[in-house]
Amino acid sequence: MSILWESRYALRTKGVTSSLIRELLKLTQRPEVISFAGGLPAAEYFPVERFRDACNRVLAGQSHLALQYGPTEGYMPLREFIADRLCRHDVRVTADNVLITSGSQQALSLIGALLINPGDHVLVERPTYLGALQAFTAYQADYIGVPTDAEGIRIDQLLEALRHGPKFMYILPNFQNPAGVTLSRERRHELIHLAQERGIPILEDDPYGELRYEGEAIEPLVAIDAQLAGHNGDTYTGNVISLGTFSKTLAPGLRIAWIVAPKNVISKLTQLKQGADLHTSTFNQMVIYEVARDGFIDEHVAKLRVVYRKRRDAMLGALDRYMPAQVEWTHPDGGLFLWVQLPDGMPVRALFDAAVRRNVAFVPGDAFFTGPNPPPTARLNFSTVGEDLIIEGVRRLSEAIEEVQASSVPVSTP
Amino acid sequence: MSILWESRYALRTKGVTSSLIRELLKLTQRPEVISFAGGLPAAEYFPVERFRDACNRVLAGQSHLALQYGPTEGYMPLREFIADRLCRHDVRVTADNVLITSGSQQALSLIGALLINPGDHVLVERPTYLGALQAFTAYQADYIGVPTDAEGIRIDQLLEALRHGPKFMYILPNFQNPAGVTLSRERRHELIHLAQERGIPILEDDPYGELRYEGEAIEPLVAIDAQLAGHNGDTYTGNVISLGTFSKTLAPGLRIAWIVAPKNVISKLTQLKQGADLHTSTFNQMVIYEVARDGFIDEHVAKLRVVYRKRRDAMLGALDRYMPAQVEWTHPDGGLFLWVQLPDGMPVRALFDAAVRRNVAFVPGDAFFTGPNPPPTARLNFSTVGEDLIIEGVRRLSEAIEEVQASSVPVSTP
Repeated sequence: MSILWESRYALRTKGVTSSLIRELLKLTQRPEVISFAGGLPAAEYFPVERFRDACNRVLAGQSHLALQYGPTEGYMPLREFIADRLCRHDVRVTADNVLITSGSQQALSLIGALLINPGDHVLVERPTYLGALQAFTAYQADYIGVPTDAEGIRIDQLLEALRHGPKFMYILPNFQNPAGVTLSRERRHELIHLAQERGIPILEDDPYGELRYEGEAIEPLVAIDAQLAGHNGDTYTGNVISLGTFSKTLAPGLRIAWIVAPKNVISKLTQLKQGADLHTSTFNQMVIYEVARDGFIDEHVAKLRVVYRKRRDAMLGALDRYMPAQVEWTHPDGGLFLWVQLPDGMPVRALFDAAVRRNVAFVPGDAFFTGPNPPPTARLNFSTVGEDLIIEGVRRLSEAIEEVQASSVPVSTP
Repeated sequence: MSILWESRYALRTKGVTSSLIRELLKLTQRPEVISFAGGLPAAEYFPVERFRDACNRVLAGQSHLALQYGPTEGYMPLREFIADRLCRHDVRVTADNVLITSGSQQALSLIGALLINPGDHVLVERPTYLGALQAFTAYQADYIGVPTDAEGIRIDQLLEALRHGPKFMYILPNFQNPAGVTLSRERRHELIHLAQERGIPILEDDPYGELRYEGEAIEPLVAIDAQLAGHNGDTYTGNVISLGTFSKTLAPGLRIAWIVAPKNVISKLTQLKQGADLHTSTFNQMVIYEVARDGFIDEHVAKLRVVYRKRRDAMLGALDRYMPAQVEWTHPDGGLFLWVQLPDGMPVRALFDAAVRRNVAFVPGDAFFTGPNPPPTARLNFSTVGEDLIIEGVRRLSEAIEEVQASSVPVSTP
């Protein structure tokens, strides 16, 4: 037997426990299952022709760059493209403020490495994105969870939470994963004001911001920070580190995302990235740039908005039609997810089993909670499957809820 | 000014110091510089047509997989392909023993995360690959350096070093980076015997093994471990974790490498990888598989061997012809590098400056040494530029050495 099994090589995964979710998701990959569990973009709308043209163009003219080692910071035209797009908001950034990462998950991991000492507290929304918890827990973070409502994180509860001295605040402002809620403009201003006053940096994670189906876009936290600090004419040197990705707007399979931050922060993160994976695929950065440029990304996102809005509406309609009375859910203005609050005391694992028996899957909400006593909740994705399957899936899920309710509620005998 | 600059946010990069090498390399990227400094494959031999066909094939038939999220472990046909190739040696592994990583640098980083607690000692060859030192130092490793000679790590010195209780041994058995030396078959057996006897795992890093230009291939450490443990009929459960990559055999720009290890170790590393970057680009894994399959990788490597052998021979010939008497160098049987021992007391930084003034660059050897008092050395790469430039570059480097010798040796006045 390998010495690697001995206790000396406890094979610590630094707080990363075997992912229950990953195991659950395996169950749901059977083709007959209608899965609301993943966070997958609709594969049938990937711009395949555009990707094919981009690959051919990059390999025809620039293969010596595309297939070779490249700089850790990323491909310069792509960094400039990302900076220019962010400048459409009222904040001034350049390529020096942009680090290309291998997906947003790597961005979360690098920021964990940079900012978290063992035992540091990270302030998070409750619930929050479980991939972020996984990245931060690897650096032995503790958490302060602040409840959210339909307008995002609750500022009244934030004041109390800030007394615990968080190292930074992790905020998903748009169509939050998992809850689907959006931080209102007023609360964004209050949050930034508090962050500046108390000297707490903010990590803004915005994978879905461009996928808005109704209502008016609200400026990102990084732009509000620049405005409220009163130096939005200068290159950004504020307190917000802001994450974005092409995974939801173009395709996740290329793993191209980015970090926007003050230049010195980017420089430190670049050193950490060099040790972590040297650099992100040069080829993929060049291909994504060729796909996104010349206005294509905006045209494509406009198309996705129509598709995903229909799917969201199909899910909202089916929930209205089928769900029992004690079930509630959020109304997301965009993104990929909505969040279901199940009847008090419902055993969510039993519900998951009952749903899988009916060939429908969701993510049990407890994985998204820090701290004890997560309420019974479920995250439902509406981007992956078409409307008919969404409606049928919600119908089956409602049946499963009724079944579990019937079997878990004590029945009074005559 | 951002609160992120405050001392509380010291922006620790966890022992990763600003990379001098990276700064030096920037100097050498001017087109007029003949660079022996990088470790770049010859871009003019990238199999561009094959990559283009592979991209088109993958996007024509499997875009819904290639552009989508994928499993953390990697693309199954690629994992099987890698396992099958390793089975050509006398060791039994399956896809379950393979984790796809975003370049070998990520493999080093994940293994650092898994095995290194702050202050743990890692036993390394002296000199060793600086990217590994960077990855391990991020987890606050200390080092035990063991000298190498023309047959690789010195077993007589290893015995003493093992008394310090290293957590694992990091070994580059073939055409070592930076020294270019190969661990002999006899020493491989001695090393594995000692590792099994003392219970010390080995991390085998073999990016160059297929690029052999003379002599007979020697089995990898993972195969010798299986043989000496006497259960090479069973699926591998030994003490060696073995790294490989397509960066030197096909192209580095796609960042596709792998870890082979006992299944339980792969399972732990998969959890860590999930937190680090979720998964490696699905598209790139499928493209590399399409490029490599059906014997293409072996045909292509056979072609590279011819090209790189000529370049190595050009460099060895030029060193013979031009170098002053007190300079010595290794004779690599393969790989990308040779290693130059400069005259005692030569100031290597001054030599680097003198070389760059002549538009020729190398990597000063001190970056590859753990511990104090690195001898004056230089790493020269012979894979990137053609023979004529190699000869001219060595001529200029020899001139630079003579210039620095003349100015730094005390001259006796009459």
